[in-house]
Amino acid sequence: MLPKELFQPKSIAVIGASRNQEKVGYGVFANLVKAGFPGSLYGVNPGGGEVLGYPLLTSVEAVPAPIDLGVFVVSPKDILKAFPILAAKGMKAAIAISAGFKEIGGEGILLERDLTAMAKSTGIRVVGPNCLGVIDTHACMNASFSNGTPSKGNIGFISQSGALCTAILDQSIGGDIGFSKVISMGNKADVSESDLLEYLADDPETRVIMGYIESIDDGRRFVRAAKEVTSRKPVILVKAGATASGAKAASSHTGSLAGSDNAYGAAFRQAGIIRAASIEELFDFSIAFSMRPPTSSGKILILTNAGGPGILAADAVERLGINLFEVSEELQAKMAPKTPPTASLNNPIDIIGDARADRYRDVLNILSQEDSIDTILVLLTPQGMTEPDETARATVETLGKTNKAVFASFVGQASVEEARKILMAGGIPSYPVPERAVDAACAMFRYSNVRRADFPEDGGSLGGRPMAAQRALGRILNKGGKGGEEDSRDILEAYGFSFPKNAFATTSKEAVEAFRSMSVPKVVMKIVSPQILHKTDVGGVKLGLASEEDVANAYETMMSTISRLVPDAHIEGVSIQEMIVGGQELILGLTRDPQFGPLLMFGLGGIYVEVLKDVAFRIAPISKRDAREMIREIKYYPLLAGYRGTDPVDEDAVVDALERLSVMSSDFPEILELDINPIRVMPKGKGLRAIDCRVSVAGTEK
Amino acid sequence: MLPKELFQPKSIAVIGASRNQEKVGYGVFANLVKAGFPGSLYGVNPGGGEVLGYPLLTSVEAVPAPIDLGVFVVSPKDILKAFPILAAKGMKAAIAISAGFKEIGGEGILLERDLTAMAKSTGIRVVGPNCLGVIDTHACMNASFSNGTPSKGNIGFISQSGALCTAILDQSIGGDIGFSKVISMGNKADVSESDLLEYLADDPETRVIMGYIESIDDGRRFVRAAKEVTSRKPVILVKAGATASGAKAASSHTGSLAGSDNAYGAAFRQAGIIRAASIEELFDFSIAFSMRPPTSSGKILILTNAGGPGILAADAVERLGINLFEVSEELQAKMAPKTPPTASLNNPIDIIGDARADRYRDVLNILSQEDSIDTILVLLTPQGMTEPDETARATVETLGKTNKAVFASFVGQASVEEARKILMAGGIPSYPVPERAVDAACAMFRYSNVRRADFPEDGGSLGGRPMAAQRALGRILNKGGKGGEEDSRDILEAYGFSFPKNAFATTSKEAVEAFRSMSVPKVVMKIVSPQILHKTDVGGVKLGLASEEDVANAYETMMSTISRLVPDAHIEGVSIQEMIVGGQELILGLTRDPQFGPLLMFGLGGIYVEVLKDVAFRIAPISKRDAREMIREIKYYPLLAGYRGTDPVDEDAVVDALERLSVMSSDFPEILELDINPIRVMPKGKGLRAIDCRVSVAGTEK
Repeated sequence: MLPKELFQPKSIAVIGASRNQEKVGYGVFANLVKAGFPGSLYGVNPGGGEVLGYPLLTSVEAVPAPIDLGVFVVSPKDILKAFPILAAKGMKAAIAISAGFKEIGGEGILLERDLTAMAKSTGIRVVGPNCLGVIDTHACMNASFSNGTPSKGNIGFISQSGALCTAILDQSIGGDIGFSKVISMGNKADVSESDLLEYLADDPETRVIMGYIESIDDGRRFVRAAKEVTSRKPVILVKAGATASGAKAASSHTGSLAGSDNAYGAAFRQAGIIRAASIEELFDFSIAFSMRPPTSSGKILILTNAGGPGILAADAVERLGINLFEVSEELQAKMAPKTPPTASLNNPIDIIGDARADRYRDVLNILSQEDSIDTILVLLTPQGMTEPDETARATVETLGKTNKAVFASFVGQASVEEARKILMAGGIPSYPVPERAVDAACAMFRYSNVRRADFPEDGGSLGGRPMAAQRALGRILNKGGKGGEEDSRDILEAYGFSFPKNAFATTSKEAVEAFRSMSVPKVVMKIVSPQILHKTDVGGVKLGLASEEDVANAYETMMSTISRLVPDAHIEGVSIQEMIVGGQELILGLTRDPQFGPLLMFGLGGIYVEVLKDVAFRIAPISKRDAREMIREIKYYPLLAGYRGTDPVDEDAVVDALERLSVMSSDFPEILELDINPIRVMPKGKGLRAIDCRVSVAGTEK
Repeated sequence: MLPKELFQPKSIAVIGASRNQEKVGYGVFANLVKAGFPGSLYGVNPGGGEVLGYPLLTSVEAVPAPIDLGVFVVSPKDILKAFPILAAKGMKAAIAISAGFKEIGGEGILLERDLTAMAKSTGIRVVGPNCLGVIDTHACMNASFSNGTPSKGNIGFISQSGALCTAILDQSIGGDIGFSKVISMGNKADVSESDLLEYLADDPETRVIMGYIESIDDGRRFVRAAKEVTSRKPVILVKAGATASGAKAASSHTGSLAGSDNAYGAAFRQAGIIRAASIEELFDFSIAFSMRPPTSSGKILILTNAGGPGILAADAVERLGINLFEVSEELQAKMAPKTPPTASLNNPIDIIGDARADRYRDVLNILSQEDSIDTILVLLTPQGMTEPDETARATVETLGKTNKAVFASFVGQASVEEARKILMAGGIPSYPVPERAVDAACAMFRYSNVRRADFPEDGGSLGGRPMAAQRALGRILNKGGKGGEEDSRDILEAYGFSFPKNAFATTSKEAVEAFRSMSVPKVVMKIVSPQILHKTDVGGVKLGLASEEDVANAYETMMSTISRLVPDAHIEGVSIQEMIVGGQELILGLTRDPQFGPLLMFGLGGIYVEVLKDVAFRIAPISKRDAREMIREIKYYPLLAGYRGTDPVDEDAVVDALERLSVMSSDFPEILELDINPIRVMPKGKGLRAIDCRVSVAGTEK
């Protein structure tokens, strides 16, 4: 938990306060003074002198105790020297603005380690280093070198980029957006995004949390914290570096598909975070949540004075998969006397080009009384008779105080500028084009689907036989970490996965014998060799062998092909498997994300997985609900659910299997990657049959 | 061809000019006067009097000949009365601003028909009715009731919504965007978007054409015209009503997937039109093309003074599938002396937070001399030492006059407002957030891929045997228009499609006999009944019958199942087909779009088509290149091209097949819908085997 002294200190010492207006140390001190910080404020600078009427103390020792908050704008080494002195004076929290730490590498890394250690050992929480600072508008505290102080508002903003902080504050200072708190996180040596989310969740001045994130260090804590927060307040984040998944060398399909962005995507989804695709969306969404209560109907009513913008808004509604509110005949009858006969009273309601403010007001009055409508988009295009300002006022007066989510888009520039200001000041979020307003409305609906905390602390009720798996893992380790099919299968069987009948053979004769003893109609033969991972590529798979002769021939062909194509491979033998007919091919997988830990994958299997990439990810541990959501997230799902003549598959069995994989991932952190591909899901009630699998194990862990 | 008198008349008569400032007739006349129309200007109003120093004539007859352009702001009936009188005075073009035509229905439809007829019979081209009017900024002609006249510029703008015109002009008047011509098309009684595209293509003042379109009447002419235009100038359109594809009752897969938006999508793609997804994109893209030459490298160089915005821009680059320019070591060496050691000289080039304008200028100077760079994005975030205005000037001075596509995004508001104006005035398109700048750069790259005109006027070299197809079509018509499998197959065979061996049987004995005479390993049995379209649903398909006994049993089971499930169906018998093993299942299809005519579809076949919807569309006639692009457009394409152990399919055979379908669609306009699903494409060189097909024919055409 962060101390409240970070935001509402009674006393602040600025180490490195400066008289030189070019220096950051001046900027920070001046911001504190100009924002009207009501507590005791001390500046420290060896040169002494006076800033804005405050005398500068020449040493840290001279600062009178008690001090709640230390703000540091001196060199890293001077921070480390001053810190213990202020700690002794009762400092509860610190903001390290100075750069020169981890971001410069080398010695900077060591200095940052020292700062972190000091924070841990004293219990004093440190924001930064290498950050813009911290602002609490309601406490009149601006401990940052921002260019001015933003307006008061109810948006809490956290940012991993100081520059972006500046840019966003610039918008606030010039415009219509207000903040409760602004925290530039810098290098996150101590205070992390998770700490801040938890604090802002409890902050009565903060209604919505927006943030810019480049990386998350403790992914699992973040998901846990965010999940708790989003059940109380919307959290909207933009994740930069989203597509730069890097060239991770992965030997499994799951590993190669699970770029870090998929892990963030899964984490955000599981945590109920609304992800903005750009800074513009971050703003657009935050403004909406800041001004209006979240709504859940999924239906929008559009009011317009021109067809074109109405159609564009309706297009956006359809594209986003939400709906137009259906206007009943009764409601149409109420509006009819207030509108000309050529108006269109279906949604979008078009009260046509000559609508003055009074016509808008009449219709908005009627709409404001309709409880079944929770989301309204008011569009205006400036035409001959249009009264933009007065229409803005009518919108605010009729809808501003209601519990409806109301959005406005007055299209144009010169004639609607003032109207937009009236709308924003009246609590109606206003967007330059209709599509952006619809996007924001859709974000609200998405938030209403955010689940309340149901994050299982460890696995579900399904377990496995860890000891049996442990033995197989040991064998894999002995072979260098890459599991062959036999050992991989043993691990999965220990967790309840079932495979076709199976035997191992090292000669043609043994293969024929295996076929005979299985007494199944058809078998598949596959090469067993630690060097051959993609068996199909080298002729290492033969399907549909239906007679002893088939089996013998397949064996000879396979050996001669492989010895030609992969002469260096060590061939252990072949596996003879019962051939499974029917069902649908899926892939289940597990990989490890550096931030979030075990990442489960579900998707369309076989060779399709790499081309169609129709897969879903979740961070383990998962609940049954998570598992079911994963299954239903893929595009192919309708075919699994039973589509025109195909039987529905055994979805419950897939849910169980995903849960079991989740448990396995926590039982065995040394399992780095795992593919079960394909795994065939049979019709409802008939379970799963894993066909092929592969496990990679880390040798150094556990 | 439109007469140039529509835009640069020597003389104009405004019928309905008014002294009453509340009237549209005043607005139009005043705009003509205020914009400084240099030719002869006459206002007509039965009440007489004077407007802005011009005496009003009391009758149309009193207008002195010759008159080039008539502008009408009187009732529809008065337009129809005045039109012939002005025609006799030499009128070359007319603008009908008044409403009261088609859009009000009833009598209005008849009045509009009369207006169209008058235009056709006199050869006088008419814009409107029900429109805002026409503006030519370079000719100082504003024949519209817009609220002011937009700045001169090089964007030609056509709009099917008068209100949207107004909104966009409002932006121009208040802001930085200039137009060459603005045409509000209204009901398009005579002058269409195709006429205007053709005119603007030849207009030396117009560098880029932007438009807002709700519907296109003659789709085929539009594609032909646009294709010609886009080879010379970029055309950017937003299509409203895009997703409202309506509930078209289609019996084929092709028909049900080909909503009108797919037809527009195909048309725009084939015509080389850049489609904007929103009004905001329409603006963003138009500004880019208006200010910078189109570039083609597909590579962007990003220069920034802060990490965050740089990463967000790089994310957008990756998301759009374009690339970051790779900065060579030589280039880095050139920049190094001008930048601090902590700067990052890889792309994004980060010259860090304390960069003043001179550092930007130094680096931009170096970049401006690099011929291998054609696209540069300059980012700026206002920080302590940042000089936004001076940096904007440095950008304009170093890059403004180059042939590079340069984009800027100075993030923030208050501190960067002036800088943005400097950039725009200096010919550098400027965007509030980096992502939108990258989107615009990507649109430029897309334009560079627009093909030069190669639209075949009728089909390719491949043909069919129309007479044989004609006979089968006759049989389908006799059965009510829905083709059974036998007749449909005859049509396709006439156009070179090959099917598996096949026989028809009406008894179990005949079925067994058919199997025997085929001497193939396996056959498929399918029900033949005009009432049963989805055979699988009712047990009407049996696969893999390998013996006479199998065939006999399958027949009995099928008949008993179907008589139970579809007791009313008339059963003609069963088809016995050779079973094709191997290859990949595709769908080829044809449907008719009301605007664009024959629409061809290609995609993943079988039951996947409806779920994955992995299909591509083109308007026939198509070239080989179109066909190949269709094939490569689907997501599944890598699997067709040969993916890890699968053989590449016979792509050339698919290209031929699509061309043959294209020819067929023009030989037989009465074919309304056609599905070949599945059609199996065999490995390279082995051709296609159509498995199932269905043709629907119109009874009333031809």
